Amino acid sequence: MSETLARRYARVRAHTDALAAPLSEADCQVQSMPDASPVKWHLAHVTWFFETFVLEPHEPGFRPFHPAFRVLFNSYYNAVGDKHPRPQRGLVTRPGLAEVRRYRQAVDERIAALLARGARDAALGGVLAPLLELGLQHEQQHQELLLTDLTHLLSLNPLQPAYDDGPGPAPMPAQAAGWIAHDGGLVEIGHDAGAGGFAFDNEGPRHRVFLRPFEIATRPVSNAEWAAFIADGGYRQPRWWLSAGWDWVQAQHIDSPLYWRREHAGDGLDAHSGFGLHGRRALDPHAPVCHVSLYEADAYARWRGARLPTEAEWEHAATTQPAPAQCFGAVWQWTASPYSPYPGYTPWPGAVGEYNGKFMIDQTVLRGSSWATPAGHARASYRNFFPASTRWQFAGLRLARDC
Amino acid sequence: MSETLARRYARVRAHTDALAAPLSEADCQVQSMPDASPVKWHLAHVTWFFETFVLEPHEPGFRPFHPAFRVLFNSYYNAVGDKHPRPQRGLVTRPGLAEVRRYRQAVDERIAALLARGARDAALGGVLAPLLELGLQHEQQHQELLLTDLTHLLSLNPLQPAYDDGPGPAPMPAQAAGWIAHDGGLVEIGHDAGAGGFAFDNEGPRHRVFLRPFEIATRPVSNAEWAAFIADGGYRQPRWWLSAGWDWVQAQHIDSPLYWRREHAGDGLDAHSGFGLHGRRALDPHAPVCHVSLYEADAYARWRGARLPTEAEWEHAATTQPAPAQCFGAVWQWTASPYSPYPGYTPWPGAVGEYNGKFMIDQTVLRGSSWATPAGHARASYRNFFPASTRWQFAGLRLARDC
Amino acid sequence: MSETLARRYARVRAHTDALAAPLSEADCQVQSMPDASPVKWHLAHVTWFFETFVLEPHEPGFRPFHPAFRVLFNSYYNAVGDKHPRPQRGLVTRPGLAEVRRYRQAVDERIAALLARGARDAALGGVLAPLLELGLQHEQQHQELLLTDLTHLLSLNPLQPAYDDGPGPAPMPAQAAGWIAHDGGLVEIGHDAGAGGFAFDNEGPRHRVFLRPFEIATRPVSNAEWAAFIADGGYRQPRWWLSAGWDWVQAQHIDSPLYWRREHAGDGLDAHSGFGLHGRRALDPHAPVCHVSLYEADAYARWRGARLPTEAEWEHAATTQPAPAQCFGAVWQWTASPYSPYPGYTPWPGAVGEYNGKFMIDQTVLRGSSWATPAGHARASYRNFFPASTRWQFAGLRLARDC
Amino acid sequence: MSETLARRYARVRAHTDALAAPLSEADCQVQSMPDASPVKWHLAHVTWFFETFVLEPHEPGFRPFHPAFRVLFNSYYNAVGDKHPRPQRGLVTRPGLAEVRRYRQAVDERIAALLARGARDAALGGVLAPLLELGLQHEQQHQELLLTDLTHLLSLNPLQPAYDDGPGPAPMPAQAAGWIAHDGGLVEIGHDAGAGGFAFDNEGPRHRVFLRPFEIATRPVSNAEWAAFIADGGYRQPRWWLSAGWDWVQAQHIDSPLYWRREHAGDGLDAHSGFGLHGRRALDPHAPVCHVSLYEADAYARWRGARLPTEAEWEHAATTQPAPAQCFGAVWQWTASPYSPYPGYTPWPGAVGEYNGKFMIDQTVLRGSSWATPAGHARASYRNFFPASTRWQFAGLRLARDC
Repeated sequence: MSETLARRYARVRAHTDALAAPLSEADCQVQSMPDASPVKWHLAHVTWFFETFVLEPHEPGFRPFHPAFRVLFNSYYNAVGDKHPRPQRGLVTRPGLAEVRRYRQAVDERIAALLARGARDAALGGVLAPLLELGLQHEQQHQELLLTDLTHLLSLNPLQPAYDDGPGPAPMPAQAAGWIAHDGGLVEIGHDAGAGGFAFDNEGPRHRVFLRPFEIATRPVSNAEWAAFIADGGYRQPRWWLSAGWDWVQAQHIDSPLYWRREHAGDGLDAHSGFGLHGRRALDPHAPVCHVSLYEADAYARWRGARLPTEAEWEHAATTQPAPAQCFGAVWQWTASPYSPYPGYTPWPGAVGEYNGKFMIDQTVLRGSSWATPAGHARASYRNFFPASTRWQFAGLRLARDC
Repeated sequence: MSETLARRYARVRAHTDALAAPLSEADCQVQSMPDASPVKWHLAHVTWFFETFVLEPHEPGFRPFHPAFRVLFNSYYNAVGDKHPRPQRGLVTRPGLAEVRRYRQAVDERIAALLARGARDAALGGVLAPLLELGLQHEQQHQELLLTDLTHLLSLNPLQPAYDDGPGPAPMPAQAAGWIAHDGGLVEIGHDAGAGGFAFDNEGPRHRVFLRPFEIATRPVSNAEWAAFIADGGYRQPRWWLSAGWDWVQAQHIDSPLYWRREHAGDGLDAHSGFGLHGRRALDPHAPVCHVSLYEADAYARWRGARLPTEAEWEHAATTQPAPAQCFGAVWQWTASPYSPYPGYTPWPGAVGEYNGKFMIDQTVLRGSSWATPAGHARASYRNFFPASTRWQFAGLRLARDC
Repeated sequence: MSETLARRYARVRAHTDALAAPLSEADCQVQSMPDASPVKWHLAHVTWFFETFVLEPHEPGFRPFHPAFRVLFNSYYNAVGDKHPRPQRGLVTRPGLAEVRRYRQAVDERIAALLARGARDAALGGVLAPLLELGLQHEQQHQELLLTDLTHLLSLNPLQPAYDDGPGPAPMPAQAAGWIAHDGGLVEIGHDAGAGGFAFDNEGPRHRVFLRPFEIATRPVSNAEWAAFIADGGYRQPRWWLSAGWDWVQAQHIDSPLYWRREHAGDGLDAHSGFGLHGRRALDPHAPVCHVSLYEADAYARWRGARLPTEAEWEHAATTQPAPAQCFGAVWQWTASPYSPYPGYTPWPGAVGEYNGKFMIDQTVLRGSSWATPAGHARASYRNFFPASTRWQFAGLRLARDC
Repeated sequence: MSETLARRYARVRAHTDALAAPLSEADCQVQSMPDASPVKWHLAHVTWFFETFVLEPHEPGFRPFHPAFRVLFNSYYNAVGDKHPRPQRGLVTRPGLAEVRRYRQAVDERIAALLARGARDAALGGVLAPLLELGLQHEQQHQELLLTDLTHLLSLNPLQPAYDDGPGPAPMPAQAAGWIAHDGGLVEIGHDAGAGGFAFDNEGPRHRVFLRPFEIATRPVSNAEWAAFIADGGYRQPRWWLSAGWDWVQAQHIDSPLYWRREHAGDGLDAHSGFGLHGRRALDPHAPVCHVSLYEADAYARWRGARLPTEAEWEHAATTQPAPAQCFGAVWQWTASPYSPYPGYTPWPGAVGEYNGKFMIDQTVLRGSSWATPAGHARASYRNFFPASTRWQFAGLRLARDC
């Protein structure tokens, strides 16, 4: 098994390198806002995770690659020790990109050697496997974050440069929106620890939830549908908005999804352009709307006479036939559920127990996955979460309603 | 029935006046922070509520007491029109306190006349009754807020003046803490609309929730117990805290409940004093700790190896024999539940529909009631809610744990 | 002489009381912004000044009126000890207005008694006279500040209430603007300590300044002239503005003097109204423009192809025949001079040495006096000073230019 | 003459490149605070200056190197058009460093060609010479700023990296401090336009100033002398400080010059280290103290019973025999003079008139030059200026006092 794991390790790590390959050292250096991190920091931090949680406890004669990296590339694990302040990640021009790449390579080689030992030592192999898997899942999360953060950075450049000069995704076909009805009742959601497969601690335990009958939309809300909300004055009428959302709209002068820009007069979709890793482009009317906050998603749903699904409804629908389209691989989907512990939730022991539990306040759950989520990383029980005003993630929405 | 309602109206209104009676015009004028309101504003706003939602639609030939009051004393009802910015409430020195008292009296007289008509006109009476009741419940909420806001104002005065020079509450007897076990399962919570009695829209509909077995504490956490948390360094160790809570503790230099002050060296309870409407006093060791935030309540629970109850657990326990002590009349009790709509929740129609629903984001539910809650206002289904960093409310906590 | 001083003391103190007489306790309580102070605080602080600098060192058996007042009503004298934070002055509802009036009365009686001793004891009388005079000059400064702060407070009330319901000042007659030429050369400015008469320490020593030939305007800039600047787009063109001024105009959305409000379409003076102690009124076209910042005054002068006079030019012109009109009693006049010590400047010894010198950075000098300056308080060497963005003072401008 | 100018142009431009040569693309990219600029931006902006003010009006068939650079690399010239917001300079990762170097090279070639034309066309040559000289003086200013900004960036890196790994400057010899007396009287300062040589517009016109007798220190204040101020509690006693300075000390928790770090207990100089382009090092006791604000310089002078010189005193002393030591090439020296226009000052016509005049508010003049000022750039009439809280410049102080 550790042989397979070694190959999986190499593949995931190589994918991270591939994502950063087209970028200059400057592109990798800059932090565009406190919530984002530099690409270089992502490259180093995921490596630090392996060094700290795999090599340090299990490599004989462990010595850190660089003593200062323990602090520099710690994100938020208080149990590990000090950490460099998040808003100052972009100030660290040294180590340079080349040294961070050497860091990645050195850790990769040492992990490979350790895995080889694990292949010969079943006890060690059994300890390493779940830690490696956690590190790889963690790295996959940062693969997506690297792209969200990079999109944000490039969007602030007046030249509106593209990360990828290719043609971009093909236009999506029109698809009528419908509803899928569910009876509700006492259903089970959450990851079943006994069933195998990786899950984060916050996805369990599997537990019973009582649902009322509900309907869920067959697909996410599209750009064209969102443009109708704009045209109807949706961003200017307080009645659709949560109170905090309305304050936010006014204070931030929000009038369309992040990265949309009004190119000429008119309210229609064609009056706007969008920005993404392919640069500034026309918006695809049938693609799911992206880069909206929970506030906007909630207001839109209200305007449509609907609501957002709870995460239990979403998961139940996504795992029941017929499942709705585009649950995965399009956009993350805001739910109506605040991010809270499941009944009986227990964080993992040790420092990795800081992974999820300590963020369970004032965040809202997103479900599914986006086009930028690495293949194989998504699952129905996955709980993504962000504050209600977050817009730089690849997030849209799917409607629900009571029957 | 409207005769009874008239008497109830007079009694509730008189209680508000009695609360403000010991105060000077200056005491009634000042707004100590944006989250608080001046006493004078409370006196006027609750009156505006009756004028706007009872008199304006139902009084023949209605004319406002003063046209500008429509804006000045609107709190947040967008459907009613403009509103004076909340942080500027304390700047309105005119109308003065005497004119606001005339406003109260004039509206009281007109309400009385309208109720007399309602006593003779059953259709009108039937319409008025629920509106009046809502207005009175609203005024009772502001009776408590008036005291929370006043406490905050007086606390900022270096002279630490008392609102009430009396002896204050008698010391509470020591009371051993225990646990009450519950089996859980599929239980019902929420207000049953068919059962009669007033409830806010957010308390319904009554619905089923699946609970795991749990235990709940027989009484709230006391001042003496809290002092042990301080003495153990609870405010200095990140492991007990939510991430946002730890940031808040450090940024705000929090090291004890609001209004506690260290009087001399030492960590014990007797090294601290507290502040309240009786001025600065010694802390009662056996009284429930008060003026803690959700962040602090959550950290304390973790330090004790316990957790906060969910609101469903709290309500189920409070309505099942044997019920825990001090569910009501001591301190509001933080729960683990974010403030979200119940399944099937529908806001009231019209402007009063803005009462609750639009605040359902990034707030946490408190249950029970405090010593400052007016008699008869509390009930088991009541959902109070505040942001996680809130400390100036009369809020403490009760522990729970999994079985 | 101390007999005369006693009468002067009584007259100045009574004038302060008269200014506050029409106000409610609420009007006297509120602080409308950190730069302003409550009327009640002004009433108490000027009394504290006499108590601290006259009674405390010279009254036999001195005991403070209230020990806490030493801190509560200290403005900024570090040498005296702690001081209550300025932005929190409005939070102190106790002592109430009546107690502050008792404080005033008690100090007045004790000062009277001390002056009576001084009348019999020449040495004491000689010590008291300059201290009393300083206290009275200080109180006169606060008489004007009380009105500037009150105007600001009332301006923020949506009802736009008047302090004085009388007809207000008569319209000013039209007056052609002209220039008065000066040859310059080596001139003397500043207060001559040997010549007698009161002056603050910052007005001396008298010293020589070399001036180039210049011209100064016969009168201040009028409202009608200012309206022409607005109509010409003066607030929208960066070329007239200091860099910091342009940033300020844009960040604060400034487009007219403080308290001006556009009542209907059009750019002319009659499209605007003004606000003052008589409430909201039409603007007098020939009255000096008031409530402009140094940034605005400087931009206006540039737009007119002129400049502001330096304080040396202003003082030289004001003391040379023919002197320009309205040097005093209309509006304070911004100069081109940063507030710096005169050559050879020495602060007064002791705590009163903190009166002026420690503010000599990033402030600009205003000369003359306003309609609100108490009679007898103004003089040609007087140096008023405020930050460049200040608008709530009664400040306008007078033009100058090189020959 | 233009031949010489061409060589001078090449030399100055090459020096800029040499300063940036040891840096990585990441080092050149990052903006460490809004007041600082990225090295890459400096490289591009000084080039933009030549392109905009020399090539655009004078090169036949001028076409911009890149149309977007007109906005991207404009610093503050409103007359030129829009400008990229200063705090966002560090976000522009594209153009990359290589393209900015191509930009420099392209402009250099076109300037060389234009100069060759100027050598054959006397009229053109006469027009080009002063513009080129202005551009070179401008570039020299940015050579120093590049080093100040880079020092700030590297100082924020926890690794405290060095720009230059060499041994650093040799220790300075101890040098007794003395005073040089001046009689004052009517003296002349400022640049004499008729005397030839380059000067910025703010250095003229030459004009008469009346000075009282004064003494000026023979050398700047040293690190060892500054350490005595720290040891005497200078940063903790309000009496030495301007009011705004004391607020600043407390709000920013200032207790030593920027980049000083306390390495172990004790107050002496050897308890501290300093940071600079050679990394973190011991402080040289006899070197001039550097990286202090005007607030600190002023407080120190008061503590010494002295004051800062006015700029007129400084310039008069620097140009009169015997001149004090280290007027140039050590540290910029704060003066007591706010930055104001000289009598008769006229900005240059056109867009370059925005160079100096519009900053004449709330800044204080520094005189002399620092070790980082390019050779040949300093002169006695030079007026550098920064806000009073500025610390990242290479600024110290020299004392003066009244006779």
